[in-house]
Amino acid sequence: MTATPAETVTPAETVTPADAPRRRELHLNAFLKPPGEYLAAWRHPHAAPDAGVNIRHVIELARTAERAKFDAIFFADLVGVPFADQEVLRRVSVVNDSFEPTTLLAALATATSRIGLIATASTTYNEPYHLARTFASIDHISGGRAGWNLVTSLNDAEAQNFGLDQHVDHELRYERAAEFFAVVTGLWDSFDDDAFLYDQKTGRYFDETRLHRLDHRGAHFRVTGPLNIPRPPQGRPVIVQAGSSETGKNLAAAVADVVFTHHPSLAEAQVFYADLKARARAAGRDPDEVVVLPGLATVVGRTLAEAEDKLDRLTRLLDPRVALADLAYWLGGVDLTAHPLDGPLPELPLSNQSQSAQRHIVDRARAGGLTIRQLAAQLTRDSRTVVGTPASIADHIQEWFEGRGADGFNVVFPYLPDTLDDFATLVIPELRRRGLFRAEYSGRTLRENLGLPRPPSRWSTARPRTRS
Amino acid sequence: MTATPAETVTPAETVTPADAPRRRELHLNAFLKPPGEYLAAWRHPHAAPDAGVNIRHVIELARTAERAKFDAIFFADLVGVPFADQEVLRRVSVVNDSFEPTTLLAALATATSRIGLIATASTTYNEPYHLARTFASIDHISGGRAGWNLVTSLNDAEAQNFGLDQHVDHELRYERAAEFFAVVTGLWDSFDDDAFLYDQKTGRYFDETRLHRLDHRGAHFRVTGPLNIPRPPQGRPVIVQAGSSETGKNLAAAVADVVFTHHPSLAEAQVFYADLKARARAAGRDPDEVVVLPGLATVVGRTLAEAEDKLDRLTRLLDPRVALADLAYWLGGVDLTAHPLDGPLPELPLSNQSQSAQRHIVDRARAGGLTIRQLAAQLTRDSRTVVGTPASIADHIQEWFEGRGADGFNVVFPYLPDTLDDFATLVIPELRRRGLFRAEYSGRTLRENLGLPRPPSRWSTARPRTRS
Repeated sequence: MTATPAETVTPAETVTPADAPRRRELHLNAFLKPPGEYLAAWRHPHAAPDAGVNIRHVIELARTAERAKFDAIFFADLVGVPFADQEVLRRVSVVNDSFEPTTLLAALATATSRIGLIATASTTYNEPYHLARTFASIDHISGGRAGWNLVTSLNDAEAQNFGLDQHVDHELRYERAAEFFAVVTGLWDSFDDDAFLYDQKTGRYFDETRLHRLDHRGAHFRVTGPLNIPRPPQGRPVIVQAGSSETGKNLAAAVADVVFTHHPSLAEAQVFYADLKARARAAGRDPDEVVVLPGLATVVGRTLAEAEDKLDRLTRLLDPRVALADLAYWLGGVDLTAHPLDGPLPELPLSNQSQSAQRHIVDRARAGGLTIRQLAAQLTRDSRTVVGTPASIADHIQEWFEGRGADGFNVVFPYLPDTLDDFATLVIPELRRRGLFRAEYSGRTLRENLGLPRPPSRWSTARPRTRS
Repeated sequence: MTATPAETVTPAETVTPADAPRRRELHLNAFLKPPGEYLAAWRHPHAAPDAGVNIRHVIELARTAERAKFDAIFFADLVGVPFADQEVLRRVSVVNDSFEPTTLLAALATATSRIGLIATASTTYNEPYHLARTFASIDHISGGRAGWNLVTSLNDAEAQNFGLDQHVDHELRYERAAEFFAVVTGLWDSFDDDAFLYDQKTGRYFDETRLHRLDHRGAHFRVTGPLNIPRPPQGRPVIVQAGSSETGKNLAAAVADVVFTHHPSLAEAQVFYADLKARARAAGRDPDEVVVLPGLATVVGRTLAEAEDKLDRLTRLLDPRVALADLAYWLGGVDLTAHPLDGPLPELPLSNQSQSAQRHIVDRARAGGLTIRQLAAQLTRDSRTVVGTPASIADHIQEWFEGRGADGFNVVFPYLPDTLDDFATLVIPELRRRGLFRAEYSGRTLRENLGLPRPPSRWSTARPRTRS
C-alpha cells in the first residue's frame, strides 16, 4: 500500500476531450417522485396511493423509463419530515414517507439493466466514508449506472435528527460540501483500476502497490482510508448538483457532471446555461462535459384541450387548504393565515430555506397582481409545466435544446404512472422522428450514455507492475 | 402529530406468547462471505475470484440458499481495510473488497422473494436516524425480510475513517450501542401501523395523530424524529447480536431476536445456550424468542475420505505466510515473526480486538502443545468446521439442536459455491428426512419464519380514529 502519490502523478480531473467537435445529444432524466410531483397526485384514479413504499409500482416506473431510453431515473431526498402543519399533513403525500433512496437504487439496479440510477444524498448529515462506499457499491451492483446528487440539505427538521438545533449556515455547509466531495472522490481512487489480479495460479489476489491510503486531514474531516471496495466501474459515479446561489453555481461548475436547474422562460435558461458553461471553462473544464438539465413537467393530450382537461381534473382534487399551506412553505415557512386571502402577498423576510424558490413566487405574484388565494391556486401548476400535444411539447424541447437553454431536461411527472406513460409513448417517439433522441442506449454506463469521459484515478500513471 | 405517548401506552417490547408450548424448529442462516470463508477460497477452481463485486455470483448464492429454504442469508461488515501486512494483502481476499452490505441486501431483495436478508451495521460509526431508515427501507422493499446484526466494531482502521485516532473503548461503545438501539427502535415506531389511510375519496392521506415524534435527548444522541418512512412490515427488522463479553451477552439477552455465537464443543455451547436463555428470562423476555445460532462450517462428501480430500485440496492452496499472518491478526495484531516458528506460542498481551477469539486460539495451542507453525496450519480449518457425510453432519446438527446447544446454525461456507451447493443438496434433504427442517417457508416475513412475534409499536393502544 502506498501512502503518497508517486512523483509522476497527474492531478487531472477529467481526461482530455477528443479534438473533433462532438454532435450535441439530448439527455433526459426522469425525476420520479411516487405517486407524482403534484400534491394531489395520490388522489388520481390511476395512482398507486401507497407508491412511496410500493416496490412493484416503483420497479414498473423504472422499467417504463428504461424502455423509453431515458438516460437515468432520479429520486430526491430529505432526512426528516418537513411539514408540521396538521391540516396539510393529513391531506398530502409530501411527508416523504418513502423508501430511503440509496437502498431503492440498489433494489432497482437488479430490476433494470441499462438506465442510470441517481439519488440525492446530503453532505451536511452524512459521513464521507459511508457515502463514498454506498455509491461505489451501487455503481458495482449496477455495472456503472450510479449517480449522486450532492445537496447540502434545507431544513431545520433535518438538523434536529442529527444532534443539531437548527440548520447549518449556508456558507459553512458549502465549505463542508467542498471538503466532503474531495474526500469522497479521493476514497473512490483507493484501488487503481488494475489493482485486482485474481491470479489463482500464483496466489496473487491483488497488487498491494495499487492500493492507496487517502490520509485526509481537513477542517471538517479526518479520513485515513483506503475505501474497502474496488474503484467504481465509472471511475467516479456521475455527480449531479442543483445549487442556484453563487456558491452553489461555483460548486456545480467545479465538480458536477450534470446540473439540475429550474427556469420559467427560455431567456432565463439561456442566461443560466451560458453562465454555468463559462464558470466550468473558468474552472479548467470542458463545458461540454457539464450537462445542464432544466426541470420540465408535462401533461400531454392528443389535443391541447384534452391536455388542459387532464390537468384540470387533477387540480380539482387539491384541497385549497393544502395549496395555501404549500405556498406558505415555499415562501420560507411564513404564516399566511394572518393575512386576508383576497389581499396581496405581504412583504416577507428572506427565506432561510430556498431563496430562489421564494423569489420566483414573489415575482410571479407581483407581475400578475395576484391575491394570496389566486397565487395558491396557480401554484398547483408550477412554472415548469408545459401542457400540450406531443408536437407542441417536442417543439418546446427542441427550442430550448437548440437555443442552448438546455442540454436536455430533468422531466418531472405531475401524476404517475400516466404522465410518464404519456411522455414515453407520445413525446419521445416525436423527438425520435425529429432525430433529437436516441432509439437505443449507446453506452453501457451512465457516463457513456451522457457522453462523459471516465475520469482517470488521481494516482494513474504508467508504472511497471511489481513482481510477486 | 403527537409529541408524547398517550397515558394508556403499554411499553411492551414483544407481544405475549401463546400459552401452549410451541414445537421447537431448527433455523439455518447462511453466512455468505464471497468467495468463501477460508483465506484461500478464491483460489478454488470453482470459485469466482471477483465474488466480492460480482453481483450475478452473489444473486446465484442467495437463490441457492432460498431454494434450500434457509431462514436468511447474512453479510458481515467492516468499515475499513483491516490488514496492513503487505505479504498477506497481496495474497488474500480479506481486504473486505466487496459490496456495501445494506445496498447489497436491497439489490438481493428484488432478486429473491422469501429468504431473510441480514447485514451487519455498526453502532459506533453510524447515525441512528440513517440506520433506522436504511433497515426500514430494506424491510419495505423486501416485504418484511430485513435483519440488522448490531455490532460495535473492532478495529482502529475503522475509527480512523471517521475522525478518530483509535477504536472507541469497549464499555463506552456498548453504552452508545444501547442508546443507539433505543433511538432506532423508537424511530421505527414513528408511524402507527394503521397511520396511512390513502383515502382518495375524502382526501385523507393519513391520520396525523398516528405520527409520533421521538424527541430523544440522551448522552450520545439528540434525535427529534419522526422517521420519514412508514413502520416496517415486521414492526421491527429482526435484531441479531453476537457479543460474547458480559456486556455483549447482556445486550443480546435484552434486545436480540437472533444470537450468533461460536463454540468448539457441544458442552460449551450448552453452557452458553442455558446462560443466554436465563439472561433473556431475567430481562423479562420469553427465552424461546431468542434464537441461538452457533457457527458451523461444513465440508461434505459421500464418504468421510472424500470430504477430507476436498478440505485438503483447499488448504494446500493457502500460502503459509498468509496462515501465519492470519494467526497473528486473530491473536490481536501481535508480531509473531520475532518468535521461532517451531517454538511455542509466547505469552501475549490481552487483545484489544476480540478477546474471545484470542482466548480460543491460545487454549487450543496450549491443549495441543502446538508450535506456532502447527497452530497456523491448523487454523486454516477452524474449530467450527465439521467434515463428513450428509448423515454424520446431520447427526451433529441434530445432537446440538436436541441437546439444547443450539436453536439452529449460522452456517459458514469454507469455499463457494461448492460448500453451499453441497449443504443444500446433501445435508438439508437429510435433515428433512429426519423431520428436522422445513420443506417450505411457512411465513412471509423473516420474523414469521423464525417463529418470532411481530413487536407492537410502543404507542399502540386501542384509540378511536380521529375524524377528518
